[in-house]
Amino acid sequence: MVRDLSKNRGLNLPDGVLHDDMRRAIDDPDVQIGVELIGGVPAAFELCSDLLRAGKHVVTANKALICERGPELFALAAECGRTIRFEAGVAGGVPIVAGLTESLAANRITGLRAILNGTSNFLLSRMADTGAGYAEALAEAQERGYAEADPSMDVDGTDAAQKLVILARLAFGAEIAFQDVSLGGIDGLDAEDLQFAKELGCAVKLLAVANRTKRGLELSVRPTLVRQTDAVGGIGGPMNVVAVRGDLVGEAWFAGPGAGREPTASAVLADLLAVAADRPPFHAATPAEPIRPVPVDDLVSRFYLRFRVTDRPHVFADLADILGSSGISLASIIQHAEPLAEENEDDADPPVVSVVVMTHRTAAGRLRAAAERWEKLESLRGEPVVMLVAD
Amino acid sequence: MVRDLSKNRGLNLPDGVLHDDMRRAIDDPDVQIGVELIGGVPAAFELCSDLLRAGKHVVTANKALICERGPELFALAAECGRTIRFEAGVAGGVPIVAGLTESLAANRITGLRAILNGTSNFLLSRMADTGAGYAEALAEAQERGYAEADPSMDVDGTDAAQKLVILARLAFGAEIAFQDVSLGGIDGLDAEDLQFAKELGCAVKLLAVANRTKRGLELSVRPTLVRQTDAVGGIGGPMNVVAVRGDLVGEAWFAGPGAGREPTASAVLADLLAVAADRPPFHAATPAEPIRPVPVDDLVSRFYLRFRVTDRPHVFADLADILGSSGISLASIIQHAEPLAEENEDDADPPVVSVVVMTHRTAAGRLRAAAERWEKLESLRGEPVVMLVAD
Repeated sequence: MVRDLSKNRGLNLPDGVLHDDMRRAIDDPDVQIGVELIGGVPAAFELCSDLLRAGKHVVTANKALICERGPELFALAAECGRTIRFEAGVAGGVPIVAGLTESLAANRITGLRAILNGTSNFLLSRMADTGAGYAEALAEAQERGYAEADPSMDVDGTDAAQKLVILARLAFGAEIAFQDVSLGGIDGLDAEDLQFAKELGCAVKLLAVANRTKRGLELSVRPTLVRQTDAVGGIGGPMNVVAVRGDLVGEAWFAGPGAGREPTASAVLADLLAVAADRPPFHAATPAEPIRPVPVDDLVSRFYLRFRVTDRPHVFADLADILGSSGISLASIIQHAEPLAEENEDDADPPVVSVVVMTHRTAAGRLRAAAERWEKLESLRGEPVVMLVAD
Repeated sequence: MVRDLSKNRGLNLPDGVLHDDMRRAIDDPDVQIGVELIGGVPAAFELCSDLLRAGKHVVTANKALICERGPELFALAAECGRTIRFEAGVAGGVPIVAGLTESLAANRITGLRAILNGTSNFLLSRMADTGAGYAEALAEAQERGYAEADPSMDVDGTDAAQKLVILARLAFGAEIAFQDVSLGGIDGLDAEDLQFAKELGCAVKLLAVANRTKRGLELSVRPTLVRQTDAVGGIGGPMNVVAVRGDLVGEAWFAGPGAGREPTASAVLADLLAVAADRPPFHAATPAEPIRPVPVDDLVSRFYLRFRVTDRPHVFADLADILGSSGISLASIIQHAEPLAEENEDDADPPVVSVVVMTHRTAAGRLRAAAERWEKLESLRGEPVVMLVAD
């Protein structure tokens, strides 16, 4: 079933194989497995539900569908005694769904950290390697086909967060919604952030993290400083990686191309073969002690903050005061960059400088409270950059 | 079943659960799955064969068994309609058997490169990081429990080659024996080899490689210069990694701890769960065009050669002549290290120096022929170091 019969797909198929009738597969008793690749959520949900109710197994590559309505579909599949597989829905060619649910099935998962968006990872690699700014790197990526014309879902963390929700459900058997993820994108970063990270011996990655803590499950997708000695920092370009920590295995890694036609086909076909071979998927069992996501304000981390401020007396003191009286303890505060020439053409204005602050471990909520105050600072220019610092 | 009933295993088990009667599990009709963890080949082969013939499924962590007698066991399992799984037999906690045979089942595998021995990888990481020589790094690794008292099978490549044989059978559906692997160890390396690699922007890894070529399957386990920009070069310490190249997926990676009690348990339990869930393993189908290993002399690569020679006139010329007349084309020849002080105490002797040669792509057989000639050189001191250079 395709939407547009007239589109040239570069294939020679016998007449009648391609059709545009959604009901035909559902009503055909000879069809045993439906593969959903139409994308979008409402129509795909209806299609998959109808397939399951008609007694077909389902294979899908639809990440948004599984993120938003996966639990309903899994319940329906169980009710119908049918299987739903979605390896291609998370990180394309990275065989992480099978990895988590089958290869690591004996482990109690304690955490995972992952690079789940190839576009962002490519942009960050280029910015680090060439010193380019975000806009420049994006233009190059769009030219080379590594970024969409509208890259917002890739660079603002949405895409990675949808994948993290799916993975964390599988890994922790927890009920998780998109809103449980502390979210930040890479679109506010500048070349100097990557340069500063490098000086600290770190790479910047859009890291998706899920951590089992005593307070609950911490979930975040944010630009993160990762030590260069950590091999995750070495995963560059469009490659995705998921590093899973389990009580038995220690840390196991799955990596590969996160998107693309052929890697997606590899995952869809693996699912098809698995269904055809009658391999029942493991489903995350409800754990003995269910774990809940912590509120995003309760995420605890070290933070990197970069402010652009006019270089007036007291600006350091004002910032330090806001952070300190918000209960945020500072590890260091550094006036980092040289005054930016282009912003200082009018000699009467004081120069604009970057101030980088590294905090000790603190709750994200304190930072949010502090932000309400620093937004009112007269000397602040633009939105400050917030990154996590991996431990 | 255990060998020694009196050994304290730190477990409280009801009486009668532990016993030392090999036949009991085989003859018990209630036993459905046998897990073989006794090690060694002949006794394990007999046990697994008897279990299969008695209608039990088998899970084993025995690498040597699968390398040496796997094909016989798989044939017997098929005959008996039973399953044999061995995830723990290859790279411990790295879920590569499931990865190759299930997640990547839709791919035509074109090659794989892997780090399959944690001891060697730890030693090479330490030598690179600290400048220590082989003996010094080994002593430290033994002290810290990363190397056995007798590490020969780890450092001479045997262990990694056994794993490569198993992986390459799965990946290429080919008949492969241990002797088909071009084999070299890390025990001849010295600090200066790692230093020289670093100057070239490379890391040294004991790399296990299988490559589909027009001439057949190239198989090697040898110390190899890997570019530092290649993320495989960043995998250090006891971690193992298998990077698989497939026509659809591009390159997918599986990584984790290659050995250890818990990672092995993780893999054995995953196999047990898979058998219990009745997931039939995929077995490598006989490919339409069977591929055969190329003779080890036909392995084609760039090579790094390091000779220790007394610094006499003509020694460069002698070496260059031997290599040239053996048909080996040189990319560069460098007198690398300073004269080694300790070998030059007697002022009458000419100093001993290291000469490093980088070749263009050449067949290993030519190198073997040249070796027969350079071994006769009067100025040669000790065995030359031979490494591959990854493309």
